[in-house]
Amino acid sequence: MIIVMRKGATEEEIADVVERVERAGFGVHLSRGEESTIVGVIGGDRASLEALGSSLEGHPGVARTMRVTKPYKLVSREFHPEDTVVEVGGVRFGGGEVPVIAGPCAVEGRELYLEAAFAAREAGATVLRGGAYKPRSSPYTFQGLGEEGLEILAEARERTGLPVCTEVMDPESVPLVARYADILQVGARNAQNYPLLRALGQIDRPVLLKRGFGTTIEEWLSAAEYILAGGNSQVILCERGIRTFETATRFTLDVAAVPVVRQLTHLPVVVDPSHAAGKRQWVAALARAAVAAGADGLEVEVHPRPDESVSDAAQALSPEAFRQMMDEIAAIAAVLGRRVP
Amino acid sequence: MIIVMRKGATEEEIADVVERVERAGFGVHLSRGEESTIVGVIGGDRASLEALGSSLEGHPGVARTMRVTKPYKLVSREFHPEDTVVEVGGVRFGGGEVPVIAGPCAVEGRELYLEAAFAAREAGATVLRGGAYKPRSSPYTFQGLGEEGLEILAEARERTGLPVCTEVMDPESVPLVARYADILQVGARNAQNYPLLRALGQIDRPVLLKRGFGTTIEEWLSAAEYILAGGNSQVILCERGIRTFETATRFTLDVAAVPVVRQLTHLPVVVDPSHAAGKRQWVAALARAAVAAGADGLEVEVHPRPDESVSDAAQALSPEAFRQMMDEIAAIAAVLGRRVP
Amino acid sequence: MIIVMRKGATEEEIADVVERVERAGFGVHLSRGEESTIVGVIGGDRASLEALGSSLEGHPGVARTMRVTKPYKLVSREFHPEDTVVEVGGVRFGGGEVPVIAGPCAVEGRELYLEAAFAAREAGATVLRGGAYKPRSSPYTFQGLGEEGLEILAEARERTGLPVCTEVMDPESVPLVARYADILQVGARNAQNYPLLRALGQIDRPVLLKRGFGTTIEEWLSAAEYILAGGNSQVILCERGIRTFETATRFTLDVAAVPVVRQLTHLPVVVDPSHAAGKRQWVAALARAAVAAGADGLEVEVHPRPDESVSDAAQALSPEAFRQMMDEIAAIAAVLGRRVP
Amino acid sequence: MIIVMRKGATEEEIADVVERVERAGFGVHLSRGEESTIVGVIGGDRASLEALGSSLEGHPGVARTMRVTKPYKLVSREFHPEDTVVEVGGVRFGGGEVPVIAGPCAVEGRELYLEAAFAAREAGATVLRGGAYKPRSSPYTFQGLGEEGLEILAEARERTGLPVCTEVMDPESVPLVARYADILQVGARNAQNYPLLRALGQIDRPVLLKRGFGTTIEEWLSAAEYILAGGNSQVILCERGIRTFETATRFTLDVAAVPVVRQLTHLPVVVDPSHAAGKRQWVAALARAAVAAGADGLEVEVHPRPDESVSDAAQALSPEAFRQMMDEIAAIAAVLGRRVP
Repeated sequence: MIIVMRKGATEEEIADVVERVERAGFGVHLSRGEESTIVGVIGGDRASLEALGSSLEGHPGVARTMRVTKPYKLVSREFHPEDTVVEVGGVRFGGGEVPVIAGPCAVEGRELYLEAAFAAREAGATVLRGGAYKPRSSPYTFQGLGEEGLEILAEARERTGLPVCTEVMDPESVPLVARYADILQVGARNAQNYPLLRALGQIDRPVLLKRGFGTTIEEWLSAAEYILAGGNSQVILCERGIRTFETATRFTLDVAAVPVVRQLTHLPVVVDPSHAAGKRQWVAALARAAVAAGADGLEVEVHPRPDESVSDAAQALSPEAFRQMMDEIAAIAAVLGRRVP
Repeated sequence: MIIVMRKGATEEEIADVVERVERAGFGVHLSRGEESTIVGVIGGDRASLEALGSSLEGHPGVARTMRVTKPYKLVSREFHPEDTVVEVGGVRFGGGEVPVIAGPCAVEGRELYLEAAFAAREAGATVLRGGAYKPRSSPYTFQGLGEEGLEILAEARERTGLPVCTEVMDPESVPLVARYADILQVGARNAQNYPLLRALGQIDRPVLLKRGFGTTIEEWLSAAEYILAGGNSQVILCERGIRTFETATRFTLDVAAVPVVRQLTHLPVVVDPSHAAGKRQWVAALARAAVAAGADGLEVEVHPRPDESVSDAAQALSPEAFRQMMDEIAAIAAVLGRRVP
Repeated sequence: MIIVMRKGATEEEIADVVERVERAGFGVHLSRGEESTIVGVIGGDRASLEALGSSLEGHPGVARTMRVTKPYKLVSREFHPEDTVVEVGGVRFGGGEVPVIAGPCAVEGRELYLEAAFAAREAGATVLRGGAYKPRSSPYTFQGLGEEGLEILAEARERTGLPVCTEVMDPESVPLVARYADILQVGARNAQNYPLLRALGQIDRPVLLKRGFGTTIEEWLSAAEYILAGGNSQVILCERGIRTFETATRFTLDVAAVPVVRQLTHLPVVVDPSHAAGKRQWVAALARAAVAAGADGLEVEVHPRPDESVSDAAQALSPEAFRQMMDEIAAIAAVLGRRVP
Repeated sequence: MIIVMRKGATEEEIADVVERVERAGFGVHLSRGEESTIVGVIGGDRASLEALGSSLEGHPGVARTMRVTKPYKLVSREFHPEDTVVEVGGVRFGGGEVPVIAGPCAVEGRELYLEAAFAAREAGATVLRGGAYKPRSSPYTFQGLGEEGLEILAEARERTGLPVCTEVMDPESVPLVARYADILQVGARNAQNYPLLRALGQIDRPVLLKRGFGTTIEEWLSAAEYILAGGNSQVILCERGIRTFETATRFTLDVAAVPVVRQLTHLPVVVDPSHAAGKRQWVAALARAAVAAGADGLEVEVHPRPDESVSDAAQALSPEAFRQMMDEIAAIAAVLGRRVP
């Protein structure tokens, strides 16, 4: 069960609720968010939880109590029926618009990144992407430029006027990355890195949470719950393909996750067709499929000269191919009464 | 290696080629098709195959020789660069049109099926579907009406003017089903039932070949090769979802298979969103995604009163929901310069 | 629900039960087995089924009635608590013995097969294997010797005194294969070929039913139910690896299927480590794991000169490697109080 | 390519090599280990790498240069042909012994944990396990006792004399956990958490690295490479089941990973049958299979009263069941010439 405190609940009210929960023999998990404080109740059988819930109805400072049957709760549409809109620098994820995040896989250098950023904006991107910290399978491959990459991203934002999205890989780096980035991205390999998710629950900045390639939809939403339970409800989900037996594509895009997730949660869901396809000739088809399925946005790899890319070269679109993709998805979004900004 | 004989090659010419191949120490696999006879060469290393190939260039009756590096050949786009169009009663799969096959999962009875058929046609379906023979996991569930079902399908075709598509489950039944059906469907569970595929290679009737839920794209195309190698090139491929760890949906629709397969083969590829989703609320989203990805058609379960369906009730669309889906996919097809007939 | 008739139930008694079921508004699925006739009741809600069940308790000819909650019933341990022992030419699967079926993947020729058969027997095999009909991904590769292969198998049995196990691929061939083979094998690709399974339900000969590489344990047991429902309860299950994202091995051996299946069913379960591993250097480790997990036998590919094998060359053991494997599994079986005959 | 410096290479020698690599136009990744410093060369085509490699042969301070074709190198058997033995408090992983790590999933409290620890030791465990930090899908479930849990583990070690193994979830906690634990465990969800792996490369303490449930064997070994590249070669690999379509078990134990990994790497590999099975009745069968396949140890959940466990209750063995399992695996290990200490 979770106990949602009223927005202005006092410390005394919170302490009183915690004490009552503990006195009743339960454990307590306290989440202090900007919007509200949530008292998670740990342990207990159905009957005792119901008794506790009843006793707290109308208690000072308590907004409501809810039984947790799914592993996630704040994330669920039952808890929050209307779509959440995550707004970043004037770009809206989740309100009928379909923004596209684009740019190179990694920030490889200043000149190249700025060239890529302008090309992406020119072709219709409204958010820039680019990794300063890269989770790479091998320790001997390019691992990103680190803070230097963050500075390049900041300069690109300055000069293009577009917000930037970049990956953060460990809790300690969250404050640093949050100083530079407009959206903090959690990569697939960290999709269940709970200390990192907790750290992201403490900041007031949007988070793009990729689904792990081995995680179920339920686990993915539960991972998002860690961020919301910490008090940060600006979460954008991102489907990017799962591991299956098929090897023709790099991963198998689970396009059905889009309507499934939109039914289960109020959070916006975007799709990364680049990592799923793994080969650029299939990226546009997956992008179109994602928008047609109802995705609230896309994240796409674009590179001025894809074959020169130091990571994931095979899957980056050229600016020309990206522009054509943008035209197609704009028309498809319109069919669904949506708009690519 | 395969040796493709000219269309009018004589028996003597064929026999001569076979003899030369055998004399060179290879095994022979002879496929007599309506369009051409193919001499498959079994065994041998690269060098000896090349020598054999050179010696047969320009030989009487020989159209060409080809090294087989993939397990499929006639199916590949290298072999036949233009799109194959499979035409059934005026409906064209593969030529820029996006026809929709619709109807109940199973033919449950005459009245109900006719009602469903008219409703499907009314909402825009151009081919009817319905199983007379049902492959069911349990031997104790409804297994289909058999020939009586085929007769009902024939009556529905007569009265609606639409061609019908129905499943065949074993080689022996091919002639019977072919007497009634316009398209013979191979279900996912028989996707690698080679005796059945061989039998379908011997008929002059389109085959809709579903991908097995555990088969790779390469195996799927190789299965189609069995039909083409037998002489029947009217094959429509159908992606219907694969087995993965995700359980929110019944199967995971591999929407990327559409552009991948369209690159690898000249055969049309359609998508069955119903079996992939397993729940009707997600079917339309998957149908839109499939058309946006470039599918050459759809196969959708529609039932006048879905909750009364004896099989797969949860995934059938009502006629109203189906009509709305049709409107959406028609608009998306138009974006790609295609047309839902 | 299923109604199990007594062993000697008369035609009148059966007809009477069928009539009562139909009069109550249900469909009927009749399975006439050698051991007993089973009346499957199709359709109906819980309440009406219970009413029907009660009304048939003690009815003439009726042994018992059972609610079907799983898709399989005769196969389940609830229905038949003791282990089923399938005996073939003195070899017992399922009674604490761990026999090994061995031989080349395919029967490639008389001389070679006889050499392989003697080598396998010499090294401890108690059943011979070898495919006369081979389900191959490509129509252009060796498809087996057909009836000639069956004759070679029969000669090998004659000369070695060991029973033989070979694959059957379509219902029409069942009588022919049954004339030659002691165990009829259903391959992974035909694991849900229901017409074939039905045909095998009609014969009085053991069937080795491989699990499909994309089928769940529940579907596999349900496939076995088709054979038992037809009246043939001599079924040996065979786990041979499933499709997963891991590509180091050809398939992923689901070794846990052994204890799971032994809990769910009374049928013996054997393991094929050769197809799972796909490379011979890992076959013995998987064989040991299977026996340690409680498998009731193994099916292993052995070839006198593995590198010359025309199919699956990479996974066949040499006779020497096979002998060493036999020594190891015999010792492991002994740890579990079992015996490799 | 990687350049392995001699053990006593001076700072000047290292700096000289780095300079030469950079002057040749390559990037540099420097790993300073206790055993040796490794200069990773980033970028470059085959020809220029070979030229660089030749020029550094025999260079002062350089032990050898190696082309990196796999993403991992120090981990590979080519690099280090003999088995690595990881020794912890007298227990040896990798040298023909098969130690068993056992204990409750989580440290739930002092009394209970000590009881469990003695029971585990009594039944044959030689290392204790227990989570002080628990990665849980839901933020509202028990997350572990934290440092209090570590103190309990230390007390258990003190009193039982057995070393303890416990999970660490983020780089910042590594020094704290390393103060208490003998083996630091990386859980499946952090299998590709590279900052954590880097931090573990900096310590002089054994690491048990679980395979991610969605990661390939190659990715798993590459993750280990991060630790070795940092200078810590005391890594124990742990297979614990992967995600597949089968739902009867919690995960699918990839038992073949044992022989595959033992061929590819010199590091010891143990198996966790508890998380794979997910139900206690199948744990012993998987444990036996693992040892029979050649595992260098096991990690098993044991709880004095399994049904009272606050996490993963369904999969913990009782001390009695654990003891029986120990007897069986000791006998199986003996068959392979190995010994359960």
